[in-house]
Amino acid sequence: MNGLMMQQPLLISSLLRHAERHHGGQQVVSRRVEGDLHRLSYRELAARARRLANALDALGVAPGERVATLAWNGHRHMELYYAVSGSQRVLHTLNPRLHPDQMRWVADHAEDRVLCFDLSFLPLVEAIAPQLATVRAFVAMTDRAHMPAGAKIPGLLCYEELVDAASDACDWPVFDENAAASLCYTSGTTGNPKGVLYSHRSTLLHTMAVALPDALNVSARETILPVVPMFHVNAWGLPYAACLAGAKLVFPGPAMDGKSLHELFESEGVTLSAGVPTVWQGLLAHVEANDLRFTTMKRTVIGGSACPPAMMHTFQQRHGVQVLHAWGMTELSPLGTAGVLNGHQLALPESEREAIQAKQGRAVFGVDMKIVGDDGRELPWDGQASGELLVKGPWVVAQYLKGEGGDPLVHSNGEAWFPTGDVATIDADGFMQITDRSKDVIKSGGEWIGSIDLENIAMAHPAVAMAACIAVPHPKWDERPLLVVVKKPGAALTREELIGFYEGRIAKWWTPDDVVFVEAIPLGATGKMLKNRLREQFRGHPLPTA
Amino acid sequence: MNGLMMQQPLLISSLLRHAERHHGGQQVVSRRVEGDLHRLSYRELAARARRLANALDALGVAPGERVATLAWNGHRHMELYYAVSGSQRVLHTLNPRLHPDQMRWVADHAEDRVLCFDLSFLPLVEAIAPQLATVRAFVAMTDRAHMPAGAKIPGLLCYEELVDAASDACDWPVFDENAAASLCYTSGTTGNPKGVLYSHRSTLLHTMAVALPDALNVSARETILPVVPMFHVNAWGLPYAACLAGAKLVFPGPAMDGKSLHELFESEGVTLSAGVPTVWQGLLAHVEANDLRFTTMKRTVIGGSACPPAMMHTFQQRHGVQVLHAWGMTELSPLGTAGVLNGHQLALPESEREAIQAKQGRAVFGVDMKIVGDDGRELPWDGQASGELLVKGPWVVAQYLKGEGGDPLVHSNGEAWFPTGDVATIDADGFMQITDRSKDVIKSGGEWIGSIDLENIAMAHPAVAMAACIAVPHPKWDERPLLVVVKKPGAALTREELIGFYEGRIAKWWTPDDVVFVEAIPLGATGKMLKNRLREQFRGHPLPTA
Repeated sequence: MNGLMMQQPLLISSLLRHAERHHGGQQVVSRRVEGDLHRLSYRELAARARRLANALDALGVAPGERVATLAWNGHRHMELYYAVSGSQRVLHTLNPRLHPDQMRWVADHAEDRVLCFDLSFLPLVEAIAPQLATVRAFVAMTDRAHMPAGAKIPGLLCYEELVDAASDACDWPVFDENAAASLCYTSGTTGNPKGVLYSHRSTLLHTMAVALPDALNVSARETILPVVPMFHVNAWGLPYAACLAGAKLVFPGPAMDGKSLHELFESEGVTLSAGVPTVWQGLLAHVEANDLRFTTMKRTVIGGSACPPAMMHTFQQRHGVQVLHAWGMTELSPLGTAGVLNGHQLALPESEREAIQAKQGRAVFGVDMKIVGDDGRELPWDGQASGELLVKGPWVVAQYLKGEGGDPLVHSNGEAWFPTGDVATIDADGFMQITDRSKDVIKSGGEWIGSIDLENIAMAHPAVAMAACIAVPHPKWDERPLLVVVKKPGAALTREELIGFYEGRIAKWWTPDDVVFVEAIPLGATGKMLKNRLREQFRGHPLPTA
Repeated sequence: MNGLMMQQPLLISSLLRHAERHHGGQQVVSRRVEGDLHRLSYRELAARARRLANALDALGVAPGERVATLAWNGHRHMELYYAVSGSQRVLHTLNPRLHPDQMRWVADHAEDRVLCFDLSFLPLVEAIAPQLATVRAFVAMTDRAHMPAGAKIPGLLCYEELVDAASDACDWPVFDENAAASLCYTSGTTGNPKGVLYSHRSTLLHTMAVALPDALNVSARETILPVVPMFHVNAWGLPYAACLAGAKLVFPGPAMDGKSLHELFESEGVTLSAGVPTVWQGLLAHVEANDLRFTTMKRTVIGGSACPPAMMHTFQQRHGVQVLHAWGMTELSPLGTAGVLNGHQLALPESEREAIQAKQGRAVFGVDMKIVGDDGRELPWDGQASGELLVKGPWVVAQYLKGEGGDPLVHSNGEAWFPTGDVATIDADGFMQITDRSKDVIKSGGEWIGSIDLENIAMAHPAVAMAACIAVPHPKWDERPLLVVVKKPGAALTREELIGFYEGRIAKWWTPDDVVFVEAIPLGATGKMLKNRLREQFRGHPLPTA
């Protein structure tokens, strides 16, 4: 016996339709590659997205075919989000930080038909265009006046001309909500990247969950500046959630330095932002060097990698900006957990609240999680036991594109779970804390040492700009921790001082055996530290034998 | 080409599973029919719901069969919500305020197999039990010690005995999310009630929408006391949304008077409540007569019928309790709109904010709405044009149970919309305001007069307890407004004073032609004024001929 309610598929176009009809006057502001600060309303953005969908028809792009983007955060990128998925094509957001060889491999693997790119990436596209096997059309995301003269891409199309030439009459098609909507590749620090193919259904459910009060709490009262790139797991769903809520959006374009960001925060009255710790580091350094304030920003979401407690403390105590620590993965669309305090935690003293906020947080509704031991059995939620983190839910990957890597899931008791590769604890309030990537764990004398804890302590030292803790082989203990450190410009710090800094902050046997100072720590395409490179580099590092 | 994400049906059991696993220690507090204040955790409630599902197996209730409840707001009713729907049966919440003949008609029409009832309703159930054609088992929702001696119901079962006898081992079954989950009948002021059959999918999507920041904003930081009954469109979804968020729940049981409610608000630290205006009237009268305060309550949702602006002002200005005006219908699960201010409205002066809050609000994400003229064409969103309100969305009715009343939808341009029977305006910010029920509109000289506006003005007079405005036939103008008024106890008020009160508050020709004072205004089963009764009663009322 079925219910008797309206059957409406969950489609991405319904988000834009809602924004257009119910928040039509709300603004989308973009700092563009051309240098200007551009404004349009959701009503105008929706009309342009319809024109673009008609332009894709004219280009002969079939339903299900991939349209790739290589672009910063801006209104044209957002128009592509809706035009491509809304018209039943698949949006493939390429990560411009990939090595050109890897980018070509990804575009070929995805069988991209169209590639739309911001002008900043012209040299890159010129370099790889001749080798792209499947791309039939290249579109420069600019107007005629800014089209590059003598671009080495035959038949290069102009985005604004395509939009202008098309009609804005288009009823978004209605189709199966399980249809593919967008495609992101994992960053693939080892081996080739793997494609995660989101459906309209998974995206819509994820969007509703992202907007919930205990997740990112997205309402019509917010002005949102996503610092997290739209090529990085759909900017954590914010371009979708903003339409759901009718929030004002502010896009920073390519200007991601602290000065440009802070100016935009202030001039547009941004209330909510989101990004990875490394970007916030640059912003905070600029703000402090110039004795600036945040006058409108109330909250920022920090994810991508663990937020150092020292950064959280600075945001909250010095700037009055609440930090929302969140955790996710490409395979999770990406949101899995958010560190929103519950009722009884709000009443705790500040230091205890910050200790809880340093955890990655509670599962958002829709995601279930568990930690398991080596034998696959579920471990208790006591905040002590640590094991591999497994998740399930309607926006969690079931398999990678083209079946790459085989079945990624773990099956038990008729249920399928996705093993995240993270090692975590979960406490009695359901707060999960990542203690390590399973491949980064340091195994010393049969016990585990969490590299993230050691990095957070180093980051709390005023002279440290960045720190990575890695395992190096040890004849007696199998592995011991080595700390790789980038000092702040002009700061003085010795190995002995930093090792002494651990005293009283951690169990003695967890203390790093040695410290090496480097100019820079290699970062991957999504800003994460590439510890495997460091492990290779320091494999033979001689440890003190004390 | 389909996405490659996990396929998980949207099932009501997932809400309880989430609450159990991620908020297991959170409390559900119930004032019970037996007189005690009862506490249990979500973990315990989930275990009891599993036992109850197994008990339904033992009673031989097949998937899809209806289990009816006749109960106040309490933990046992909530256990039934999850046990019945979670095990693929259909929960039918009977409204105890229906006339016994109508209740019997509804139970027969729904083909209820089991009837679970609170002890307060024993005499009612004894009276109708012999005539119920399909009910095979009657369950008194109490323990053995409180079972009524000599109940005139053969084979009467005891709820707590059923729960105790069953195992709590039960994996909630996984099935099609379009399966029927619960059933509510419209109040049916004319003709027989009609059944609205919700699906698991419609309920889950509605629950996520209810919890959004721009809807009821339900988080783990709230303590929620739903005054709105669980037999009144599933208490507006709060028993589901509370599990989604892990909020503390407080159930008032049968004690709905101002004193009992206020004590419970204070003793349990309630932060959020929800109910119809008539209940709040009793609560506010008690609070003011005894010079009491709300020390923890921050927000209350008011719906079911329009909230008089005077009540909203009292809550907000005198008690610091924000009022969230919401609108819905049984056919909408029920939520359609909520009056949450957006960013630019927050900056307006208080009087302008209150004028906006007096509207029924913006469509929650998932619901689309429009107003149409007599010719079916969409009217502009200018806050002036008024027309019939139509809605669509995945939690809007598609047809009534057994096809009663034929196709309820209006079809145009390949879209199907549900005509609400409300007459409304929509302003440029998307705020909808109901000006009347289409059947209550007063047509004077070819123009419409909105009865709700006239009632709100009367309600703002300090001597008025309740007011209804109805059309009476008029030889020259076709219809003219007549005001039917209940005075506050001991208050003195004349017809002339009240008519004078309209001066300057409304266009002169909208002023009621006459006022009649009555002892009481008849209310329907869900607390709405039965204006059709008044229209019959006053059909021949002589109007002054001035």
